Amino acid sequence: MHTIQIQEATARLRKVQNLVVSKQADACLITSSVNQYYVCGAIFDGYLYILPDQDPISFVKRPNDFSGKNTVSIRKPEQIPDLLQQMGLPVPKKVFVEADHLSYSAAQRLQAALGMPEMENVSGKLRAIRMVKSPYELEQMRESARVHAAVYEKIPSLYRRGMTDLELQIEIERQMRLHGSVGIFRSFGQNMDIFMGSMLAGDNAQTPSPYDYALGGGGASPLLPIGANGTKLTPGTTLMVDMAGNYRPYMDDMTRTFVIEHAPELAYKAHQVSIDIHREIVAHFTVGILCSDLYNRAKKMAETNGLSEYFMGTRQQAQFIGHGVGLEINEPPVLSPRSKEALEPGVAFALEPKFVLPGIGAVGIENTYIVHEEGLETITHCNEELVTLS
Amino acid sequence: MHTIQIQEATARLRKVQNLVVSKQADACLITSSVNQYYVCGAIFDGYLYILPDQDPISFVKRPNDFSGKNTVSIRKPEQIPDLLQQMGLPVPKKVFVEADHLSYSAAQRLQAALGMPEMENVSGKLRAIRMVKSPYELEQMRESARVHAAVYEKIPSLYRRGMTDLELQIEIERQMRLHGSVGIFRSFGQNMDIFMGSMLAGDNAQTPSPYDYALGGGGASPLLPIGANGTKLTPGTTLMVDMAGNYRPYMDDMTRTFVIEHAPELAYKAHQVSIDIHREIVAHFTVGILCSDLYNRAKKMAETNGLSEYFMGTRQQAQFIGHGVGLEINEPPVLSPRSKEALEPGVAFALEPKFVLPGIGAVGIENTYIVHEEGLETITHCNEELVTLS
Repeated sequence: MHTIQIQEATARLRKVQNLVVSKQADACLITSSVNQYYVCGAIFDGYLYILPDQDPISFVKRPNDFSGKNTVSIRKPEQIPDLLQQMGLPVPKKVFVEADHLSYSAAQRLQAALGMPEMENVSGKLRAIRMVKSPYELEQMRESARVHAAVYEKIPSLYRRGMTDLELQIEIERQMRLHGSVGIFRSFGQNMDIFMGSMLAGDNAQTPSPYDYALGGGGASPLLPIGANGTKLTPGTTLMVDMAGNYRPYMDDMTRTFVIEHAPELAYKAHQVSIDIHREIVAHFTVGILCSDLYNRAKKMAETNGLSEYFMGTRQQAQFIGHGVGLEINEPPVLSPRSKEALEPGVAFALEPKFVLPGIGAVGIENTYIVHEEGLETITHCNEELVTLS
Repeated sequence: MHTIQIQEATARLRKVQNLVVSKQADACLITSSVNQYYVCGAIFDGYLYILPDQDPISFVKRPNDFSGKNTVSIRKPEQIPDLLQQMGLPVPKKVFVEADHLSYSAAQRLQAALGMPEMENVSGKLRAIRMVKSPYELEQMRESARVHAAVYEKIPSLYRRGMTDLELQIEIERQMRLHGSVGIFRSFGQNMDIFMGSMLAGDNAQTPSPYDYALGGGGASPLLPIGANGTKLTPGTTLMVDMAGNYRPYMDDMTRTFVIEHAPELAYKAHQVSIDIHREIVAHFTVGILCSDLYNRAKKMAETNGLSEYFMGTRQQAQFIGHGVGLEINEPPVLSPRSKEALEPGVAFALEPKFVLPGIGAVGIENTYIVHEEGLETITHCNEELVTLS
């Protein structure tokens, strides 16, 4: 459907090969779905074996009709050395592996299978490569954001009085799927479960969760303690909608907030401060600015407006106001107080300064921006005001 | 919502403690969501530290209001030795870790943080413990199966002529969610993605996938190459529905097959052979029978009926006809040709002898059974015949 063009694939491969060369490794073994997709445009069960100076080899367990170039059928990693020798290739002495993804047992088995090479973690380096997007990737994100906005614009028509957060979420999920959402919502990290996004109604927005997302919520099951928990949508409270923008392999991220019938003045004020933070950050953006500068500017504005105690949560406050977006929803960089990472052209990031107001709910917006030499491009074009559901 | 009773929790903990004692380990560190939920009924970001002879300690990064007994707040694993010493506890010299789940980098960091103890993989042993269910767990699975059947019974009323597999799936997903499906669908293994289950229409059932599920399907996106791919539901073909039974933390697994308007005689014949395999296996079941015996009996019946070439796929044939079910959809045992695992009371497993018929589609059924001393109990009560959609 969204097959990667040859030029694009070549450029990506080259980046990984340059990494292999620069670190004097012999090869890089890609095992995660996201990085397989990134490098070769397809997912398989097996090992994508990247060499410094020739086409990669796909050692494939499954599917048995994998159509990639240089595909070698394999049952187990112990076959790799013999298969390499048959191809006239040396068994590597130093390999990159995705050590943040590969399990400890799988990594140990792989290391033994390859005759105990030195193994170095390439996970963070691949995330750094993926952080800077190509024009093709950015266009996918823009497309995803356009669909995302179309779905959000339907929300007022999906609302019925007396609904719970979950009931409305289910109707939004259906619209998402009808608009082409892949469903599955990829995030990085071993315990970062989420299902299609998060809806936070009223005081459920205060509930801390185990997951490292901006806000929490109790969830509807102890098996997934995040997001909507069955709260009835009640006049005088807010509903924050942060559902997945997974309409293309490359995602966008967008939050909008709704008022149930009416809301106290504080909701409108704090929501406007969130919008103002976006405006301020866009207005003062310069290429190369540090992530921490963006965080500190936002935090300062929250303070100036007397909203510090509500900033990014109450009982548990997130220590970041944004993050990179791409094939995973939580890519680098992180917009945190101490991040010295600079924002360079091609980086796409979500900015989500949010406030959680006790007795009312969460307010604020999240947009996805692309960094250009000339400044930030907003890709999530959708009404930013508090929209009333009635 | 489904809080584990104290008695149940105590029994589970005791099983893990007995394991620690029997293998002369000093402690077991639980880091996966599924096993945290299994042992303590809650999920958190951190380490559940199980000692042989006293209450476990929860070293919790997040949420900051975690309510478990013996909760110790922590930022990083390097704090564990000091915290243990403050509690008068020794730093372990041999620890169990979930090496099939914990990433290589996280495991190495943990090992260094603890002063390089011996680390042994407990993943398989915990899966073996979880394989034998308690009456409480089995009752949850029966409840899930009842809801699952109620959702499947709605399928004929959701069907409209000219629909694609995906369009019908979206309506089923909505019904699943309205009936309490958690959404997220947990499976074991590093590359075992799936979204709410699988629907296979016509020849899409032949398409091999990278994942180790019974059947494949091309999927709607290269990011998730499994299941429905947008095939139009066409008269003369079949639609196999294998959507998740995740209505409780403990799941059931059930497949039913539908005919679009009409189907060739072969579809009915092969479907009946699948039902007959179920009948035969239930009729001849004795406690302690080997998984391989069940597999071989099913395979023999496929052969006798001249259906070998369609058995468990065509272009890629699965090498198993069933699997354990519980908190994850793919628990032990596996009903494969060489599995010498015996089926003992308390084991719950899904049996899914399926046929893929070129030009027609997949047929067959999947039920979930519980092993009792007296034989098998079926928990997925739902019309087993081919149901016509028109």
